[in-house]
Amino acid sequence: MTVTQQPSFNPGKGAGEPVGVAILGHGTVGSEVLRLMGEYSDALAHRIGGPLELKGVAVSDLSKPREGVDRELLTDDALSLINRDDVDIVVEVIGGIEYPRELVLAALRAGKSVVTANKALVAAHADELADAADAANVDLYFEAAVAAAIPVVGMLRRSLAGDNILRISGIVNGTTNFILDAMESTGASYDDALAEATRLGYAEADPTADVEGHDAASKAAILASLGFHTRVKFDDVSCEGISKVTAEDIEAARDAGYVIKLLAICERVTDKDGVESVASRVHPTLVPVDHPLASVNQSYNAIFVEAEAAGRLMFYGNGAGGAPTASAVLGDLVGAARNKVHGGRAPGENTYANLPIADLGDVRTRYHIDMEVEDRTGVLAELSAIFATHDISLKTVRQEEAGDHARLIVVTHSAREADLAATVEDLKKAPAVKSVDSVLRLI
Amino acid sequence: MTVTQQPSFNPGKGAGEPVGVAILGHGTVGSEVLRLMGEYSDALAHRIGGPLELKGVAVSDLSKPREGVDRELLTDDALSLINRDDVDIVVEVIGGIEYPRELVLAALRAGKSVVTANKALVAAHADELADAADAANVDLYFEAAVAAAIPVVGMLRRSLAGDNILRISGIVNGTTNFILDAMESTGASYDDALAEATRLGYAEADPTADVEGHDAASKAAILASLGFHTRVKFDDVSCEGISKVTAEDIEAARDAGYVIKLLAICERVTDKDGVESVASRVHPTLVPVDHPLASVNQSYNAIFVEAEAAGRLMFYGNGAGGAPTASAVLGDLVGAARNKVHGGRAPGENTYANLPIADLGDVRTRYHIDMEVEDRTGVLAELSAIFATHDISLKTVRQEEAGDHARLIVVTHSAREADLAATVEDLKKAPAVKSVDSVLRLI
Repeated sequence: MTVTQQPSFNPGKGAGEPVGVAILGHGTVGSEVLRLMGEYSDALAHRIGGPLELKGVAVSDLSKPREGVDRELLTDDALSLINRDDVDIVVEVIGGIEYPRELVLAALRAGKSVVTANKALVAAHADELADAADAANVDLYFEAAVAAAIPVVGMLRRSLAGDNILRISGIVNGTTNFILDAMESTGASYDDALAEATRLGYAEADPTADVEGHDAASKAAILASLGFHTRVKFDDVSCEGISKVTAEDIEAARDAGYVIKLLAICERVTDKDGVESVASRVHPTLVPVDHPLASVNQSYNAIFVEAEAAGRLMFYGNGAGGAPTASAVLGDLVGAARNKVHGGRAPGENTYANLPIADLGDVRTRYHIDMEVEDRTGVLAELSAIFATHDISLKTVRQEEAGDHARLIVVTHSAREADLAATVEDLKKAPAVKSVDSVLRLI
Repeated sequence: MTVTQQPSFNPGKGAGEPVGVAILGHGTVGSEVLRLMGEYSDALAHRIGGPLELKGVAVSDLSKPREGVDRELLTDDALSLINRDDVDIVVEVIGGIEYPRELVLAALRAGKSVVTANKALVAAHADELADAADAANVDLYFEAAVAAAIPVVGMLRRSLAGDNILRISGIVNGTTNFILDAMESTGASYDDALAEATRLGYAEADPTADVEGHDAASKAAILASLGFHTRVKFDDVSCEGISKVTAEDIEAARDAGYVIKLLAICERVTDKDGVESVASRVHPTLVPVDHPLASVNQSYNAIFVEAEAAGRLMFYGNGAGGAPTASAVLGDLVGAARNKVHGGRAPGENTYANLPIADLGDVRTRYHIDMEVEDRTGVLAELSAIFATHDISLKTVRQEEAGDHARLIVVTHSAREADLAATVEDLKKAPAVKSVDSVLRLI
């Protein structure tokens, strides 16, 4: 067996030695990291084995007032700060992709360990960053990039390192969970719930990245990479947001015993020849009301993990916000600093499994289809034949009177996504079908 | 500042080198660890950076058939196995306290890292074991000792290392959760629910350690030690089990919007002079039905953590069983083996905070008191005076007709446990009180 692993080892500076920290960015997260570094300084020093020393804070606008930061520590020259000899660890909390990518690469190449909260950066450039960290034998930590204070990165990297993960299903975007929960609890329309989320600060002025699932897709890519030891990038994740979910969908789901959640689902898929691949997707999903994910309300996040030996695990908490994100950043900072003092390295990216990325069409899912059909004899037989043509078997069929027509609600058994999608296309063309009103996948 | 930390460093054997493993014990957990070590051997080698090599399995009875284990690997001489030069890591899954204590100490002193699932051992002898691990500069891992596959030990040691933990409340015993859930969902008496738990294998023939809360108290000691960086031992935990919980208690709780859970509660207590201490207790607790812990059913475990920056976090999963426990053991084994290969050490016990242990009497709790009282004018005033004498203010008072007497249900505001307990003693003596039927604390 060939083991392709990071090089050994980093001997460490020795107990009691100070660890120099540079912080890039002073927004919501950066300012909170700074505040807590000050407040917890004694405790952190004990946990690390030496004190953290703040060497500088890089900001884009030096003229902006920055409460609680010594002016002499501020700089707009991030690269020079990174390259200072007394900086051991660089904390990147800027956001964006290209500029932080340059800075993080520069830091790693200069032998600094890096802590970042930047999911878009990690999801887009994990390979390049991991290679740079390996080459320099330093740490790259990014717990805060997924679900803020919920320690899912550490859990996948370390705690479940002795298990075989089968599936990860997560509510990893607080904005969309807030909107869906508001729709569920008040009967509001999508537009009204989004407006309320914006008013309360849960949604940004341009909510696209959240509501269309892009933010969740970045996190799915990171979770899939860690869970399946395979490099999964943002572009490998199929993605559908919540902007088409209607109040009627929510109500119909409730009637059938479900709530609708935007889930990031990453799973190991085995085809009929036993070949394994990794499928990652983000879409609105029907979750049974008694499932642990169903009761995750407001802007809370939760990650549900199914592992071969551990069984079902769930991790729940604040998935965003200054303080919860800073908690995750500081946890990583303590880990990176311990290694600077005592030697050793955290487990890095490990993509040994290198599984192929599955086509969404090959993933097995279950559909909940709600349609208006003609109210006459023979309709059920005609439509059943369409399902049978695609080899889809039905779990439940419910027919209801609805004025001059009938409403047919079908829940399928698990089948290939491509076959299910083709079935829906055929249903739309069937003369007996007046309209297909909603198609949702089940967890 | 004086930093009292473990010594630096362990340089590691180098990438690709094998890591020798000895397993002590071949019961439910040990046999599952062995099976998974075999099944996952390639994946584990990639995650570690070198292959795990099983050097031997110590058992007490060599004549017993052991399916799937090479006979040559079996030995009844655990000490000799531990001391073999080619053994790097010792996995202790025997159970009990005194014999495994001797073996674990021998292993640590011989420079072997140790992975144990033994909560009773860790809760009773954490100090001695941590000192031995520090002296030899090796790892002591015990994720499986608390809540099996739920990675709460790693979470407290690493992920929340940058935060200030305020309180840990956990359902950490599956047997008692199964019994309480059965009473809740079927209306069964305690005795009937216990009998059912025994029949299904959730309770042992002698259920004392579970139902009287001793098992939960061991776990509380471990959680409090990790969370508050203070050495908390089993004897420091005040403990009340579930054997006195009646079907009537469960029903009354439900009527008031609560479920009863056996919780291990570890918290930082600050007295009126600002002096901090650590309080750890196990008792049946009223949990509001919309609290995340309320929906943890069957034999599942969950740990609810309140931290200053992270806010509320919950971790849910299988808290017992061969495979979930083995998952945690293997996760630790990968961590310890990585350090043997690449160098470095995991964060060890760190009791720098060294807070005093609070008296239960000084902890602030809330009581739910259910009593039968005389049905006459003036009773409420008489009883209110008793509460006032002890400086206890009331949150809710509910009076109900019950035949020739009245039933009074009082929920207090938060107050010193000692004052609440004294109030109950005075209520019992009050002429207007016929009986105090149930006293339960609220979360």
